[in-house]
Parts: sequence; C-alpha cells; structure tokens
Amino acid sequence: MPNVQRLERGPMMTGGTPLRSLDEDELLGRILPGFPSSDDLVVAPGDDAAVLRVSGPLVATTDTVVLGRDWLDAWSSGADIGHKVVAQNLADVAAMGGRPTGVLVTLVADPELSLEWVLDHVRGLAEACLDAGVAVLGGDLSSAPPGVVMVSVTALGHLDGEPVLRSGARAGDVLAVHGSLGLADAGLRLLQADAVDRLPVAVERQRRPQPPLAAGPEAAAAGATAMLDLSDGLLRDGGRIARASRVVIDLDPQALAGDVAALTGALGSEAALDCVLAGGEEHSLLATFPAGALPEGWRVIGSVRAPSDGEAAGIVVAGRAVAHTGWDHFRTV
Amino acid sequence: MPNVQRLERGPMMTGGTPLRSLDEDELLGRILPGFPSSDDLVVAPGDDAAVLRVSGPLVATTDTVVLGRDWLDAWSSGADIGHKVVAQNLADVAAMGGRPTGVLVTLVADPELSLEWVLDHVRGLAEACLDAGVAVLGGDLSSAPPGVVMVSVTALGHLDGEPVLRSGARAGDVLAVHGSLGLADAGLRLLQADAVDRLPVAVERQRRPQPPLAAGPEAAAAGATAMLDLSDGLLRDGGRIARASRVVIDLDPQALAGDVAALTGALGSEAALDCVLAGGEEHSLLATFPAGALPEGWRVIGSVRAPSDGEAAGIVVAGRAVAHTGWDHFRTV
Repeated sequence: MPNVQRLERGPMMTGGTPLRSLDEDELLGRILPGFPSSDDLVVAPGDDAAVLRVSGPLVATTDTVVLGRDWLDAWSSGADIGHKVVAQNLADVAAMGGRPTGVLVTLVADPELSLEWVLDHVRGLAEACLDAGVAVLGGDLSSAPPGVVMVSVTALGHLDGEPVLRSGARAGDVLAVHGSLGLADAGLRLLQADAVDRLPVAVERQRRPQPPLAAGPEAAAAGATAMLDLSDGLLRDGGRIARASRVVIDLDPQALAGDVAALTGALGSEAALDCVLAGGEEHSLLATFPAGALPEGWRVIGSVRAPSDGEAAGIVVAGRAVAHTGWDHFRTV
Repeated sequence: MPNVQRLERGPMMTGGTPLRSLDEDELLGRILPGFPSSDDLVVAPGDDAAVLRVSGPLVATTDTVVLGRDWLDAWSSGADIGHKVVAQNLADVAAMGGRPTGVLVTLVADPELSLEWVLDHVRGLAEACLDAGVAVLGGDLSSAPPGVVMVSVTALGHLDGEPVLRSGARAGDVLAVHGSLGLADAGLRLLQADAVDRLPVAVERQRRPQPPLAAGPEAAAAGATAMLDLSDGLLRDGGRIARASRVVIDLDPQALAGDVAALTGALGSEAALDCVLAGGEEHSLLATFPAGALPEGWRVIGSVRAPSDGEAAGIVVAGRAVAHTGWDHFRTV
C-alpha cells in the first residue's frame, strides 16, 4: 500500500456549507436526529456516554476509513461511505458468530468539508444501521488538517453461544464461503478504468459491500470451526485461518470457476482470477465446517487437511502453495 | 476553535524507524504484547473482533485526539498522549457512574511517523489502562496523509445501578466537584508562554489528566442527581447540566477562591480566574447531590434552584448570568 497522498480539497470541500460555519451543538443538532435507536438503548447519544442493555458476552471491533486511501470523492458518495464503513464493521461482529447491536461513529474532518456531504454520509450510516437493526450509540466530531476526512466506527454485538475463532479449523473440515468472491475488487478496477458500465453490480458492491450478517450466527450455531470475513482477499484471509489453525487449506479451482467466469467478460480471465483469489473488501464470510454440517447459503470451495511432513501451514491452490497477498497499510510497495 | 494547520513533519516523523518500513503484521507484533488483558477478555485482539464477558448495562463512549489540534509534538510525548486519550475516555464512563472495563484504540498516521513514537505511545496507553484495571480489546491501524497523526479511543464499562445523566439536577441540590479546577488550562498557558517551571504540577496535569474514576460510581451510589466530567470548562459544562435539568446553578465564588489562589502566583489573578471558570481538559467530575448526601472527596461549589419568572436555565456566578464558553471544534474564531 503506497503512502496516502496529500490531497487537494475536492468537491466535498468546495460546494455548499462548510462545517466551520456551524458550532458543534448546531452540527450535532443536524446529525443526531437521523440516527436509529433501539429498545435496548437506555441512554442515547448526547450525555457523556451511551448506556445499552446487553445479554451474553460482548463482541467489539473497530475499523476506520480515510479519504484518499479507502475512498475517492469522485467514486463514492457520502452515503456510500456511510454504508461501507458500517458494513465492514458489522461483518467483523458476524464473523465471530455475533449479532451486531450498536455502533459508535467518529468523524474527523477538515472544517471546509461540506455539511451536505456530512448529512448524506449520515443518511448512509443510518440506513445501514437500520437495515441491520443496529443503534447508533454515540460518536465524536473533530477537526483535521486541510484535505483530511476520516470516519472511524466501533461496532458492538452479542453472542448467543461460543465465539468462532480463526484458529479452530481441523483436518477433515470443508472450507466454505457465504456470498460473492472478487466482486468488490472487480468494481474497483472498473472505476479505475473508467468503465463502470461493463459490470455495474461490481461497482455497486465496491461502493456498498453486502456482508451476509445473519449467516455468521447461523454458522456458529451449525458448528463452524473457524470463520472470518473476507476483507483482504481469499488467499490472504484463508491463509490466516490455515496458519492460526496449523492446517493446510486446499482451495478447489473448480469450485471457483463460476466466480471467475462471472467477472471474465468485464475484466478478462487473468484479472478475473486475481479478483477472486486476492480481491479485498468483499466482506463475504469464509468458514470451515465439519463435513456434513454446512448450513443453507454456504458453498464448499476447499478442504482442510493436516500438513504433511515438513509442510508449512497455509493455503494451497490445486496442491500448489501460493503466497498470501493483499492490503498492507504502512508498507510502501 | 481555529482550523487545524497543515503541519510540517516534526520530530515524531524525522527520527528513528518510519512505520512504512514495517508491514502491518510486524507492527502489530510490536504493539499488541504491550497491551493489558483482563480475566473478562474471552477473545483478545488478533481475531475479527474481541469478546468480553460483561455484567449489567454497558456504558460506551468515544473520543479522538488529533496532532496539531489536541497536542503538539514539542509539548507532549507519545506516552503522554497515550495517558491522556485513555483518561479522557474513561472519565466519560465514570461520569455516567460506570466502571470502565475495556478500550479499543485506533491509530491513523502518516507512514513517516516513527516506530519509536508509536511504541512510547503504546507504553502510555498500556500504563493508563493498567492503572484503571482496563483491558485493550482491539483496535485498528491506518495510514494518513503527510503530517497527520490521530488516535481514537472507544471506552466500554458497566453500571452497577442506574446511570447518572446530565438532566437530573433538582432545585435544592448542591453542586460539587471532585478534583482540581483550572490546572490543565494553566498548564497549557505555561507551555504556550514557555514558562513550565512556574507551576510544573499544572503542566503535568495538562499532559496527563487524572480523572477521579472511582468517584463516579461512588457518587452514583450516594445518589448524585446529575454528573459529567469537566472537559470544556466549569461554566460551559455546568451550563450543560443546568439546561438539561431546566434549573439555575448558582456558582459560589468564595468556594472557588482557593482554586484561583493556587494559580495566581504563576498566571496572575485574571488568567487564574479564567482557568478555573472556563479551563478545559481538566476531567475532574462535576455533580449535583441532594443536600446532605455528599460522599467523601467532593466539595460544594454552588447550589441549584428553580429559574425565577422569565429566567432562562443556565449557570450564574454570584447571581450574574454568564455566557458559556469553551472549546468548539469547527467554528473559526
């Protein structure tokens, strides 16, 4: 991942009403009414902290998006970014087998950012939370140097049973996926090539990922032995399960042929294969199950075995070891 | 609050090992072992999300600090910032009457930021969490444009009883404070004046606030009717309680004379009074109690009454209405 460039102020910051023309109370007065609540929210945003009734162990995770690194103003609306940052956080809750219940949202922005962008962003956040039955528990607003906009979300949820870790895959399990593969990366490539009409569904997935949230707790109840959400690509994320579980995961290229074929028309076969194997930001769920325990909606794409003598834990495709790859935030490449 | 200036890369970014020379796994390997855990942490950082055993209603809050707005490299070390961002978040949990149990920490930084700064920062975060018996549940690392460093913390806690809101103050209550007044702002002024030797304790309080965390649940158990932590100054925060509760709070200047006197030698009497009445970032607790219910460690600094005919809810000093003032993050002043 290259360094994030210093950005010139784009359209988000040159039209409409700049944030600096409102005081914090006025701004909160425009933002807070748009956020969904829930019956479990005992104290809503506006006090020192929110209070939420909880049942069972708490699941907690956090993920941040930064303008210029995670999105471009030209490619995604404020509402798109609201949807996306909520979706990627809730996917992490689901990937533990949890049911998301609430989020906290922090906006750190150049005071030149337009109020209109922020209100559109809030609409997207609120819609994504409402769709998932999740309340907005609170947040923070902060000013940032010129050109900087970032949104940080913390998601909370609860577990009905035991959490599903990355480390529980066992020899004899099957590897399965719930949801699409490579679509979000295909969308990114089409945006980069200014060719969004070639596969609009991929562009829409890049802008608004659709993690199968209900499938996480269903997989946990069905006995999933390991699970995560695909944020950094099948090879890299599958490799994480394999190494944490000290097993070898054998990906079945035949099982991925349909995913590759779906992208080949828009991208050509080589790029399509890249997207399916290494494409990030998909937020489908990847899990291992004991053979025969697969719940509805999951499809088998590989199998789990013990490493042979001297073989490292990891992921192999049709028997050949492959390097894990994907996003890296600080390394200059 | 003026806009945050675009910063030139300072010492944090010009010495030692830049973050960009490590990949994310290497960086996490340096950071995660320093963080405290707890017996209630079922799944520690490293999976999709953390899992925490909880009892009672959950308290959740979030607060972010930005280089150049909330701190300057020349004035605060990485460890200082770690202490401060944890303290201000935990203070919000305590101000609801809650006991903090865990935090999530996000670092968004220019990849030129030095690893040495980050490791020092992690030491400060870890110390502050350890002092408070709080576990680090997880976090996120993200790259940012040149010169940008920010740290966002979400704090979680639990309540033994009912939450203490800002809106519960009643006529006949006393207003009380637990902790110092104006010290952190005095420290800021001494740093600005390059005169830290005049009152080192104030500078230390500016760098590392000391919220009285245990006093929050104690106040709740003793029957506090309203509470918050002093982040934006006595007038502004006291005014928040008054308006939320639809009462008038009468500050007693005599009760503040000692606080002003303690700062007068270093700052002169006018600035000392400013610090006590309007100084931010103190993170002492401010609460209202029924007369006679004051727990140990709290001192009375005012009283609560119903507004007279046509009088607005708010805070008055020796009978005279005063404008609320303090920090505002987006308004250009």
